[in-house]
Amino acid sequence: MRPKPLSGFPEFLPAGRIVEQAVLDSLRGTFELHGFASIETRAVETMDALTRKGEIDKEVYVVRRLHAAETDADELGLHFDLTVPFARYVLENAGHLAFPFRRYQVQKVWRGERPQEGRYREFVQADIDVVGENTLLRHHDVEVAVVMLEALEALHTRFGVPPVVMRVNNRLLAEGFYRGLGVEDHLAVLQRVDKLDKIGPDAVRALLVGEVGMDAAAADLCLRLAAIRSSDTSFVADVRALGVGHDLLSEGLDALAEVVAAAGAAVPGRLVADLSIARGLDYYTGTVYETQMAGYESLGSICSGGRYDALASDGKRTFPGVGVSVGVTRVVAPLIAGGRLAASRSVPTCVLVAVDAEETRPDALATAARLRARGVPTEVAPKADRFGRQIRYADRRGIPFVWFSDSSVKDIRSGEQVPADADAWLPPDADLHPTVGPA
Amino acid sequence: MRPKPLSGFPEFLPAGRIVEQAVLDSLRGTFELHGFASIETRAVETMDALTRKGEIDKEVYVVRRLHAAETDADELGLHFDLTVPFARYVLENAGHLAFPFRRYQVQKVWRGERPQEGRYREFVQADIDVVGENTLLRHHDVEVAVVMLEALEALHTRFGVPPVVMRVNNRLLAEGFYRGLGVEDHLAVLQRVDKLDKIGPDAVRALLVGEVGMDAAAADLCLRLAAIRSSDTSFVADVRALGVGHDLLSEGLDALAEVVAAAGAAVPGRLVADLSIARGLDYYTGTVYETQMAGYESLGSICSGGRYDALASDGKRTFPGVGVSVGVTRVVAPLIAGGRLAASRSVPTCVLVAVDAEETRPDALATAARLRARGVPTEVAPKADRFGRQIRYADRRGIPFVWFSDSSVKDIRSGEQVPADADAWLPPDADLHPTVGPA
Repeated sequence: MRPKPLSGFPEFLPAGRIVEQAVLDSLRGTFELHGFASIETRAVETMDALTRKGEIDKEVYVVRRLHAAETDADELGLHFDLTVPFARYVLENAGHLAFPFRRYQVQKVWRGERPQEGRYREFVQADIDVVGENTLLRHHDVEVAVVMLEALEALHTRFGVPPVVMRVNNRLLAEGFYRGLGVEDHLAVLQRVDKLDKIGPDAVRALLVGEVGMDAAAADLCLRLAAIRSSDTSFVADVRALGVGHDLLSEGLDALAEVVAAAGAAVPGRLVADLSIARGLDYYTGTVYETQMAGYESLGSICSGGRYDALASDGKRTFPGVGVSVGVTRVVAPLIAGGRLAASRSVPTCVLVAVDAEETRPDALATAARLRARGVPTEVAPKADRFGRQIRYADRRGIPFVWFSDSSVKDIRSGEQVPADADAWLPPDADLHPTVGPA
Repeated sequence: MRPKPLSGFPEFLPAGRIVEQAVLDSLRGTFELHGFASIETRAVETMDALTRKGEIDKEVYVVRRLHAAETDADELGLHFDLTVPFARYVLENAGHLAFPFRRYQVQKVWRGERPQEGRYREFVQADIDVVGENTLLRHHDVEVAVVMLEALEALHTRFGVPPVVMRVNNRLLAEGFYRGLGVEDHLAVLQRVDKLDKIGPDAVRALLVGEVGMDAAAADLCLRLAAIRSSDTSFVADVRALGVGHDLLSEGLDALAEVVAAAGAAVPGRLVADLSIARGLDYYTGTVYETQMAGYESLGSICSGGRYDALASDGKRTFPGVGVSVGVTRVVAPLIAGGRLAASRSVPTCVLVAVDAEETRPDALATAARLRARGVPTEVAPKADRFGRQIRYADRRGIPFVWFSDSSVKDIRSGEQVPADADAWLPPDADLHPTVGPA
């Protein structure tokens, strides 16, 4: 009779949810500190909007009213990311938004893929993007990386979430390099180089020669380019040393050097130039970002994004954008499951007020109200049981303090019981709210 | 080319979203102050779980993978409330939960009904419930009403959301009264009395006589019962004066008097006994709640709920529950649309740091970092425009302060500009974050 979990739809127990909330609050705090505005979009988009990019349609969940008429227009689907909805929101509300528009968005997304380790059918994403009207200066490519890295660094220092490394590249750099080698179809090269992680350099070289028609020396230069990485701007000299020249290559090198230099100053050691990063078939046109979490590299990228020359367009205006998206569930769920992150208790409650007898429950309620009036999360024992049982009620939930009607409060961890005034007593700061950290 | 909004799927502009977030944060704050634990459940349930109660199935959105095989089992639908998912969550996780389990849950729900004024196809609900294992004491019926009223009162005092009146009844009271009149099918009476608001007392009397078979005197007593309301426990004497006796009636009167007395002490003037409240066909078995917002009575009940003897059951154990649910979107959307609630600005930003020239952007970034280090939401001007344009950038978003490289800060509302140290300056408390109140 017990319902079974649905594969791919993770749900947390209350203590896990406290961890997730702490992470979401912290992300929001960083985004708002940088002045990003929150938006939320509806869960559904038209199927037309969702399938515009072709590749992704196999993953969409279609949504239909149970008793919809056959003739109902507008087939709808659940959004599979927050970029498609954001692009639509920008077009729909362009007249009411001030550009450049800097927004964050934290919502669930749905993908109908076959569930496997680290993949979910429903999960929370947190995105930041900056979108301009017709133009968007390059420093925003730096900004979104720095803001997201600060947000992830705060998770590391506050809760012990493992540190991350963001790996950044620029599509113009690769395109310019390939064009400098005489290649017309630069995307064909990019797609093969993107397989490096999976099939290794020898197999990629074979594809570049056999499928793209490059000569062996040019293929080798592409592989040498993809092998370049540095945590400072020394990658520029490494690329120049390969002896290939093109205007787009220079533009890409400048842009990438700007991101690496600025991020190195703002969030030292967390961002590297990695010239193997391609972001597959996504329609990025400049900077691209991927992020690994230390010790959890097998999860793949937990935070990715890039620049679009045209996030959206209404025919008259284009809206270029740049942004990154962190897979919150993808980060949090394995850390909770592996005991790497835990909450200090399973309820917000700091104090349980004991009840002597049902007749005196109003006194206990009054005491609780006095504690709450000063911000102390408090509940009243549900039953006038023996005190041992009431203490056990607190203990099972991790509630640290039990308050008694003789105006005393007991720290049930140490057993210490002291006289206290409900209009003055405060718990130690660390006990007021549940804390989140290594289990 | 501009996409059109989807009817029934409300979305807010950034300033409206700030209002919604403030309301959600406030609700969460009250719930946690009372020790309610947050849970979130997946958006989908099995169609079997969603349609168990028969009546509601016409409103369900079915969810299906675009490329699902015909043989795929487990048809899924979007949840239409948070009670069905909570009941399933309790059964699924009963072994890991501590009872009585007190939870709050704030999520979007979806209903495939035809959109009309004040009805949405996607909207946010905020629920609190207490669920016990086999038993649940009656004082929790008081608790959920008081906690929700405190939460709604906080919205009133903090933001100027109109005050509410919660109207409470008890199903046992009505059942006992009808049985005391010799009626077997008490639900048949309840369903007719529930139409009072729509068709008036004469039509209800006709139904009670014509369809239920009551005599005119008994029907009249039912109408007199339904006309009783009081903000204190005087309703008990009014009911007794009707001269009907039954054990269930006495039990219901006691229970309702307890709720009214306790709520009157905790949240004066916001809860009344109203013996016309029936909550239609919902499967409540004791206390029932409805809530109207002053001046917005045409919205219907913005916050409803009740007690279930069996919120869930696994065959061996039953889980009685009591809870109330507030329709957040239903409250917030009309208040925003009508200009009754507004945010003081459209971004979290308190300070815009001006940029003299693109070459000195790093200095502006460093100043911004110093302000952020002390919690001041800050952004840097996107372009080294003329200062007039940079001030206009701030003004369009409602950002109150602009910081200049000569270490001065200008309040752009008053025009006053003063010298300031980025490591010490703080804005007035009221300017640090956007505020929410009457437009």
